[in-house]
Amino acid sequence: MAELSVTDISSSLPAVPSEIAPVTIPPGSVGIVSPQYIAFDQPLALTSGQVLPSYELAVETYGELNAERNNAVLICHALNASHHVAGICADNPKDIGWWDNMVGPGKAVDTDRFFVIGVNNIGSCFGSTGPASINPATGQPWGAAFPMLTVEDWVRAQARLADHFGIQKFAAVMGGSLGGMQALSWAITCPERVGHCIVIASTPRLSAQNIGFNEVARRSIISDPDFHGGDYYAQGTVPKHGLSVARMVGHITYLSDDDMAAKFGRAQRAPADNGEFHYGYGVEFEVESYLRYQGEKFSTYFDANTYLLITRALDYFDPSRSHGGDLARALQHVQADFLLVSFSTDWRFPPARSHEIVRALLKNKRPVTYAEIDAPHGHDAFLLDDARYHAVVQGYYDRIAAGLGLPERQQTSGVLA
Amino acid sequence: MAELSVTDISSSLPAVPSEIAPVTIPPGSVGIVSPQYIAFDQPLALTSGQVLPSYELAVETYGELNAERNNAVLICHALNASHHVAGICADNPKDIGWWDNMVGPGKAVDTDRFFVIGVNNIGSCFGSTGPASINPATGQPWGAAFPMLTVEDWVRAQARLADHFGIQKFAAVMGGSLGGMQALSWAITCPERVGHCIVIASTPRLSAQNIGFNEVARRSIISDPDFHGGDYYAQGTVPKHGLSVARMVGHITYLSDDDMAAKFGRAQRAPADNGEFHYGYGVEFEVESYLRYQGEKFSTYFDANTYLLITRALDYFDPSRSHGGDLARALQHVQADFLLVSFSTDWRFPPARSHEIVRALLKNKRPVTYAEIDAPHGHDAFLLDDARYHAVVQGYYDRIAAGLGLPERQQTSGVLA
Repeated sequence: MAELSVTDISSSLPAVPSEIAPVTIPPGSVGIVSPQYIAFDQPLALTSGQVLPSYELAVETYGELNAERNNAVLICHALNASHHVAGICADNPKDIGWWDNMVGPGKAVDTDRFFVIGVNNIGSCFGSTGPASINPATGQPWGAAFPMLTVEDWVRAQARLADHFGIQKFAAVMGGSLGGMQALSWAITCPERVGHCIVIASTPRLSAQNIGFNEVARRSIISDPDFHGGDYYAQGTVPKHGLSVARMVGHITYLSDDDMAAKFGRAQRAPADNGEFHYGYGVEFEVESYLRYQGEKFSTYFDANTYLLITRALDYFDPSRSHGGDLARALQHVQADFLLVSFSTDWRFPPARSHEIVRALLKNKRPVTYAEIDAPHGHDAFLLDDARYHAVVQGYYDRIAAGLGLPERQQTSGVLA
Repeated sequence: MAELSVTDISSSLPAVPSEIAPVTIPPGSVGIVSPQYIAFDQPLALTSGQVLPSYELAVETYGELNAERNNAVLICHALNASHHVAGICADNPKDIGWWDNMVGPGKAVDTDRFFVIGVNNIGSCFGSTGPASINPATGQPWGAAFPMLTVEDWVRAQARLADHFGIQKFAAVMGGSLGGMQALSWAITCPERVGHCIVIASTPRLSAQNIGFNEVARRSIISDPDFHGGDYYAQGTVPKHGLSVARMVGHITYLSDDDMAAKFGRAQRAPADNGEFHYGYGVEFEVESYLRYQGEKFSTYFDANTYLLITRALDYFDPSRSHGGDLARALQHVQADFLLVSFSTDWRFPPARSHEIVRALLKNKRPVTYAEIDAPHGHDAFLLDDARYHAVVQGYYDRIAAGLGLPERQQTSGVLA
């Protein structure tokens, strides 16, 4: 890897508003990134029986696809993330990719060696075709008419994206949480196109409790009068209260009880005189302030129909369903090697859920590497910087690279260095 | 205990509508019960600094107060329960007391030996003065003007109730969940009036996660346009959507993940042809149907202001707060003996929370009996019939009775028989 230099791009940009500070590219960053939008005009037949006539995918790529086209890694996103996996958004220097600590030159997923694709899923709200997009049949936003999607539909759409890039087989398909479900689905539905499948903090299917929390979120959104049956775009409204409550409940499930205790405990927020309570329904505790802020912020940028759609896709995911509930049978034709990672305090998708996948793979004699990281941060741990976790992933990618004969990793950087 | 006879009360009641079936009193039931309403005209000074000018308490009693007045047991209720602890409601034969499996002749809390009082807390919505009651100052429902209450306020109101009955000292004060907090608070604030303190599935204070879930419920209610800032009575509305979502999220926290898996799993509700999904936001899974039903039912009978108030009282409870967070110091003057019970799969108030109380009591050299019941039902387990759990409670009450020189329990009945 070349010596890292701090680049001030402000001097190369005309008419930079004075309040925008010069952007400093930190070591290990892929730098300033911009999405590309790729149009697919062929109809996409969906699991539901509906057909999406055409769609666009928002995509970011990092690193270079090599001549053999065998160094490509697909990163699949979870509920509220996007194609912006790594680097600094050209439009907004504060918008750092959601897995920037994982993906970059010298990082666990080393963009000096791998060509990494981040893709926003259909139905999402960050640039790919979704419920807020224009329905070509009506000239109006799709709204409630946007078709329901499944993880398998996303994989089909991503497979066309691979074709677009001329990638026959990914070195790895990787994701956390819902992203891990997509990686798993890739290995099942396109077995010959996945070299390694990396499934982090995920599950082979939602539990009743998981579905229950999703349903709470959906009822909250749907019963908000500003939802207008999903066609709120035309009304100029946003079901922000419902979306905010949905996010709050979701957020609690991403954190561990212990982590919340450590972060917030029972600390008061702006107490009354003598540290007293206000004895009302305003904010009394830090944790309330935090959750309200998270909920309100989310409701300003996330599309409510997308929230419904993605929680439903989560509910539906269950590759064992067409095999009488037998996950091992569902996995019988996979050809990928696997890395699974779970986190000890993740109560949304606890380690036991990953164990189910590991057992089913072992039953099929697939090579599996499994790491259970003792981390206090609950489900969110998969997004956080943790040296042991990143070392596991980096070590696994070194093995992938060695297997493909890719160049050695630069030893001057990286979490193992 | 007298031989149980099946009593058909329908013949003794004039003009019974033909659709009401004769009521069968099952063995161990306290029988047909009716509440009494006891008015307290002295103002009640509250923790918040506000004053409740007067109030009424809805009360049920079972068994007989003995001449020594030393066999009284106070049962404190949790979030959504009432004074109707045991027996069959005279107005509605289907309305069985919420702890009927625990309280009755020959049961763990044996009404052949103990005089048991069930009391509805101020601020609730089952007969005691609450936000839906008429504010004497305005002639209108209190609504948002109803004062905030704390566990300590409830205890003060209950102490006046004890005075009313001429009870100087309770044989036991007992409760589960929020009811357990009241029992604990009784032992701290009226140490000389509590012989035994029985704290089941409870905690010395809510965690950040607990407060977070309460806040989700409150935001859901408060942001429902039918809430009208708490003064919905005047508008003829009920914030039923908000209340329903609040109940749904609460309900999930009462059940264990495993219990939900066993009860619902991923079973579909009314699937489409060939067992397919409907691919929409209607009910797909049994768990959704169940939670929606629970939420909707709750919203037809529970007052939204009461839900806010009681969740807030839960948040505030922390007897260690005035002792620098030291629970042992908060408990230094208690005179009661203690029974604590927790349930292995209760993730709302897990066993570790009870351990905190046990440790603080032991630090004060108080006699403590502690039982951790290995039960699959999560927090709800404290309400359910479980022979080991009930045997622990019954054994403890036998000890209380022996200590007080009460008559022996009839050996022909009871969970230990």
